[in-house]
Amino acid sequence: MAYDGTNFSGFQRQPHERTIEGVLTKVVNKMAKDPQPAIEVFGSGRTDAGVHALAQTAHFDFPIDIPAENMFKALNSMIPLDMQIKKAEIVEPDFHARYDVSGKRYLYRLDLGQFKNPFKRNYTGHWKYPVDMELLNQALEQLVGEHDFSSFVASGSSAKSNVRTIYEATAHMDEANQELQIEFYGNGFLYNMVRILVGVAVEIGSGFRPVADVQRLFEVKDRNEARRTMPASGLYLKRVYYEGDDPQHPVKLPKYQR
Amino acid sequence: MAYDGTNFSGFQRQPHERTIEGVLTKVVNKMAKDPQPAIEVFGSGRTDAGVHALAQTAHFDFPIDIPAENMFKALNSMIPLDMQIKKAEIVEPDFHARYDVSGKRYLYRLDLGQFKNPFKRNYTGHWKYPVDMELLNQALEQLVGEHDFSSFVASGSSAKSNVRTIYEATAHMDEANQELQIEFYGNGFLYNMVRILVGVAVEIGSGFRPVADVQRLFEVKDRNEARRTMPASGLYLKRVYYEGDDPQHPVKLPKYQR
Repeated sequence: MAYDGTNFSGFQRQPHERTIEGVLTKVVNKMAKDPQPAIEVFGSGRTDAGVHALAQTAHFDFPIDIPAENMFKALNSMIPLDMQIKKAEIVEPDFHARYDVSGKRYLYRLDLGQFKNPFKRNYTGHWKYPVDMELLNQALEQLVGEHDFSSFVASGSSAKSNVRTIYEATAHMDEANQELQIEFYGNGFLYNMVRILVGVAVEIGSGFRPVADVQRLFEVKDRNEARRTMPASGLYLKRVYYEGDDPQHPVKLPKYQR
Repeated sequence: MAYDGTNFSGFQRQPHERTIEGVLTKVVNKMAKDPQPAIEVFGSGRTDAGVHALAQTAHFDFPIDIPAENMFKALNSMIPLDMQIKKAEIVEPDFHARYDVSGKRYLYRLDLGQFKNPFKRNYTGHWKYPVDMELLNQALEQLVGEHDFSSFVASGSSAKSNVRTIYEATAHMDEANQELQIEFYGNGFLYNMVRILVGVAVEIGSGFRPVADVQRLFEVKDRNEARRTMPASGLYLKRVYYEGDDPQHPVKLPKYQR
């Protein structure tokens, strides 16, 4: 599913808050005429308030046997306009939208306009300094590989290990729209990790930090050294990978690392 | 100024409503330390709730003599993030942002995706039928020129005459974004006129009406015959023209026609 995260308090269900999981759970249970016990919805992982998704995934066990196409149409007709189901399929009984994830891809959009664009305020982060793409790409290259990302995780993370592997880190300059787009593809991402990575990368790209800072941050394992967390509004969960989606990177994180 | 109209109850000041004029008036008066009588802000015209502006204009008489550049910065620092001042200049004392308008240009964005895109819901209208650009362009050509637009005005208009001149009516298909963009440039537009024009134009483009319907609508002068009013979310005030801006079309509407 895709969603505009602007008016959601994130993915995870919470009492009295409008969340993706909350809306989906309500809709799915309504479709099944509120069965007991209630149907639970399992997402691939949480996204924070204001974070968007181009292709988030979730699974649930629906008690009535209906074709995927009907489920697709029914869901789309019942969810609010800031959500969109892009595909529905019937999966193996043991499939789990969260535990079976083998990788995730995130996009971060940065508005480079001198002034904040009113049409982009909820859909980009803002960065008003010139970016040297050569420096930025050097920084991104340093991030690729298996590293301990302890300097790049927000407090409040419950991960047992901060070791993750980034397969790809790429940047695209969209001159026409005064926009810089940065993508990360990896086997897993810690709490706020992408937003912190983007902050360090653009600081390097704009010459506020040396490229060597990436290596230093891996070593010091101190979140305060990474400084800036870029705003939620620029972040998009672009794709969730499951075993078989990318034969080159089939690895699932062991459970203790999640 | 530009503004994202999503969270405004339109341009015109109204008690207890968040409006463009209301916010601007408050900011300008605050900057001048709430003078008596209060400073009034005059826009080029109203936009409805949900309608956007890429370049709306307004004037006010500021009691303190400050450079335009300072006004520009001060305003931008005080207005909310869904508004942006794009330019400030000091004008002749007799300039009037509304009475001196010689023309306006509107853009209408239509999302052509089969399903409503959650990221476009506030920024486009939605049209899910295939559009034949040849037919659409024929319809738009028929609209160009001086016509009585009585079939294309919403009830509630206070205009004395419904005769307006459209100088340009063009369509652009943005295949990559599954989007159709229609622009109208004319000497003036009646209440809801662009949204009704777009509805008729795409109905013709999709084969739901014959091209000859444009001529028929000019003749019947019956708003019910035009049917559909496209949603506010797709409409953008793109440019306001004043005398000198377009030597080819210098005409101002006489006062009784406004």
